[in-house]
Amino acid sequence: MQDPEEIHKVAIVGTGNIAWHLARAMYRSGMDITCIISRSMQRAAELSKDVSAIPLDDPANVQEQPDMYLLCVGDDVLHGVQEAYAGKGPLVVHTSGSTGIGVLPADKNPTGVLYPLQTFTRGVEMAYSGIPFLVEGSAEKVTLRLEHLAGKISREVHQVNSEQRRQIHVSAVFACNFSNHLSAIADRLMQQNGLAFDLLLPLIGETTRKLSEKSPVDAQTGPAVRNDLTTIEKHLEALGNLPEEQEIYRLLTESIMRYRKETNE
Amino acid sequence: MQDPEEIHKVAIVGTGNIAWHLARAMYRSGMDITCIISRSMQRAAELSKDVSAIPLDDPANVQEQPDMYLLCVGDDVLHGVQEAYAGKGPLVVHTSGSTGIGVLPADKNPTGVLYPLQTFTRGVEMAYSGIPFLVEGSAEKVTLRLEHLAGKISREVHQVNSEQRRQIHVSAVFACNFSNHLSAIADRLMQQNGLAFDLLLPLIGETTRKLSEKSPVDAQTGPAVRNDLTTIEKHLEALGNLPEEQEIYRLLTESIMRYRKETNE
Repeated sequence: MQDPEEIHKVAIVGTGNIAWHLARAMYRSGMDITCIISRSMQRAAELSKDVSAIPLDDPANVQEQPDMYLLCVGDDVLHGVQEAYAGKGPLVVHTSGSTGIGVLPADKNPTGVLYPLQTFTRGVEMAYSGIPFLVEGSAEKVTLRLEHLAGKISREVHQVNSEQRRQIHVSAVFACNFSNHLSAIADRLMQQNGLAFDLLLPLIGETTRKLSEKSPVDAQTGPAVRNDLTTIEKHLEALGNLPEEQEIYRLLTESIMRYRKETNE
Repeated sequence: MQDPEEIHKVAIVGTGNIAWHLARAMYRSGMDITCIISRSMQRAAELSKDVSAIPLDDPANVQEQPDMYLLCVGDDVLHGVQEAYAGKGPLVVHTSGSTGIGVLPADKNPTGVLYPLQTFTRGVEMAYSGIPFLVEGSAEKVTLRLEHLAGKISREVHQVNSEQRRQIHVSAVFACNFSNHLSAIADRLMQQNGLAFDLLLPLIGETTRKLSEKSPVDAQTGPAVRNDLTTIEKHLEALGNLPEEQEIYRLLTESIMRYRKETNE
């Protein structure tokens, strides 16, 4: 099979977390970041410096036609921003997990999605080769081009359609955003009793580590999965002054019991 | 200050997860595991072999008086089991996070708690030096003896009373048992859409890693903390066929928003 038409020149739109990381990841992989476009010339200039790009504050000023416009902007402004790039010719690609490919009108130019499934901290470099990159194109040819591009950054590249990506995004909210919040609840409980949250870190680390060996259902421990009603009662009592946390305890305990029951059926 | 009276000879009661690990941890730290006592002679014999102990199926057969009986049994049988060891002379210590020291009658002999704050997998050896050991004694002298003993195993030894330990146990249920269950929910969502749960592992790993740098509240990301109602609405819609998971999504989203509001106040 012929190699897909290479995406070499990339114009990045936005200067947030994702832009900061993808610009670096692509630059290091040998791609040419032609320009960084932002409403703020200062922020565009800052990021441009790191990846030898030209900073711009207006898409109308793009001189050198890139192979791809990569929209690294929030879901809330994506719809408005994309209009400036539609119909210019190059591939237009967004990076949002929760937004379908359809937000980009495919009648004007090829479109796609390049979604890195990771939580990024601005300013903290990381290894990109293990991060799953989920790609989707408006046509098979586009998907292959994006797959080829992502393959230069990471060894974990997967074709995923918009509905699957939406489900992955919801799954990630459960496994990451929500589980982080459970740590926030634990932190509050610990603080209320004069204890340091850090005491829990080895336990949290080991809980996560186990997930690379067993499925989450098989790795489940604790009073709910043992149906240890005495301990559950003690815990609910200990949460007496925190009715909302108590409600979360109750709901998650019931859910663990239900999953266990369904697994055993 | 004089060194506390050393606990050198340890009789271990039980052969479960905690027994398996504590027997090894103490044996490696140079303590003498005099015997392993279990209702099942076979299980006692198996574990005894690893730590050069004598297997027993009846506490009445103990020949050599230990410095401590370490009760590594489930919360549900602890009350019944402890009676066989009360009043024999040696220190009697339990290892339960959710049970107060008061379950052991302190009028008959010194008592204590030695609680390793970690999730253990039977048969999987691990480094014990970083595991927090939470100790409590029926008298200050006993607490110091247990602290001294735990200090041979781990560099993370803390004096914690029964009420604090109960709160730590609840906190651990949130930060570990419940967050593992959120991964189980994510796994179900992924499977329903023909996707592998493992795709989420880098994201889960990074979410955990961040907790060693930032407090959970400061590390919080996702639509709830951004107050991104459009994405939340899309996610609730994606969970349309899973009403119970939808309810968990709603409750945790509200809780994240409440924590954020309280932090900003």
